[in-house]
Amino acid sequence: MQMIESVHNPKVKEWVKLQQKKYRQQNQQFIVEGEHLVEEALKAGVVQAVVTTRTSFSTDAPVYVVNEAVLAKLAMTPTHQDIMAICDMVAVAPTQLKRVLLLDAIQDPGNLGTLIRSALAFAVDAVVLGKGTVDVYNEKVLRSTQGAIFHLPVIQADLQMYIPELQAQGIEVIGTSLHHAVDLQSLEGPECWALLLGNEGQGVQQSLLDLTDENIFIEMSSAAESLNVAVAGSIALYQLSVK
Amino acid sequence: MQMIESVHNPKVKEWVKLQQKKYRQQNQQFIVEGEHLVEEALKAGVVQAVVTTRTSFSTDAPVYVVNEAVLAKLAMTPTHQDIMAICDMVAVAPTQLKRVLLLDAIQDPGNLGTLIRSALAFAVDAVVLGKGTVDVYNEKVLRSTQGAIFHLPVIQADLQMYIPELQAQGIEVIGTSLHHAVDLQSLEGPECWALLLGNEGQGVQQSLLDLTDENIFIEMSSAAESLNVAVAGSIALYQLSVK
Repeated sequence: MQMIESVHNPKVKEWVKLQQKKYRQQNQQFIVEGEHLVEEALKAGVVQAVVTTRTSFSTDAPVYVVNEAVLAKLAMTPTHQDIMAICDMVAVAPTQLKRVLLLDAIQDPGNLGTLIRSALAFAVDAVVLGKGTVDVYNEKVLRSTQGAIFHLPVIQADLQMYIPELQAQGIEVIGTSLHHAVDLQSLEGPECWALLLGNEGQGVQQSLLDLTDENIFIEMSSAAESLNVAVAGSIALYQLSVK
Repeated sequence: MQMIESVHNPKVKEWVKLQQKKYRQQNQQFIVEGEHLVEEALKAGVVQAVVTTRTSFSTDAPVYVVNEAVLAKLAMTPTHQDIMAICDMVAVAPTQLKRVLLLDAIQDPGNLGTLIRSALAFAVDAVVLGKGTVDVYNEKVLRSTQGAIFHLPVIQADLQMYIPELQAQGIEVIGTSLHHAVDLQSLEGPECWALLLGNEGQGVQQSLLDLTDENIFIEMSSAAESLNVAVAGSIALYQLSVK
């Protein structure tokens, strides 16, 4: 346990940089706030440092006891809690990817977090976020993942480039669309697949649908217009996992 | 089109009462705010009155043009929009129920709204809210239903009493639980069923699980602890709809 009482401490200065996307990518680290997420991160073994005002927090990871000023400096929200953790991002497994979730411009933090949670449940190897997707280190996204973020690699990429790379590795890319699509029930589940989901309002953009190997839709009652994207994506991930 | 310029107008007094649960149940009406929900309600044909500060809103339903004071009086939120509608609740179909969604103490407005949206998509006849479930006429719930609330009956009931009544009508009640449960995949889909989902943290309470005919769980990867309840419920509704 170490004490830090100044916002000018070199460690604090280093951690504060993680509020910026550029430094998160560079260091492959991010900050989580609140007891529940810190506990999940500790269980997953990805914690580099616990930062807290509590003097009695005990764990195997390094603990830094700080004052309120330091904690406020590190926090992303004005109403922050009394404990945070500096966490390593999960690296992409060196083995070839077999199951991938591709997200094109998902806007709602709850939807993104829920999709990452479902991806872990249905044994997806990595989640790839295309341009225009909400920041995954947003507090509400992290909360909605319920700890899944500490177990699953989440990558940022240009899907226009990334999809052909996956296909070159023998991965079948399955889009979601209401047009030129087959019913999810009749999909023959390929062994290696990438499921592509789109924006809440617009769906998957056409330039990406032009690249997919096939597209699916989910059969619904005629009174319904659509499903929530996290729900639709999770149903498709479940179906692909049991095929 | 009629003009109302006083908050003491008898119609306004009547509408304001709909802010209270008691009067919503008594009149079987509720208020929705914002252009998107008003449009959905109009499409569904459940609007008794449109209330707006716009002088040029045109529709077949009765339109009341009001001043800002009247609109503020009717609004549930300080940052209300310029249009609202007084809507009829969807009555329970007189035909016998065949597919029912039972919700025990769902807390999150987004989860409740998303489940109602999925229930409509997978041809559920009615959604029944047990004690401790978040108010369905909460603005965030209404928004998350994406208009499904205007097409599907949503009932409040004591599930401890309601479940035996369903069973007496030949409906099989299927709980969700990690214990004493079968894999969703191996469930033989009965023709008439009621799916019972529980609270986000606690699951279905034991006294209700004691009443179910059988229980299901969703197979997941070992790293995952659980699924979001709206996701788990929607996967089960989808599976039941395709069996």
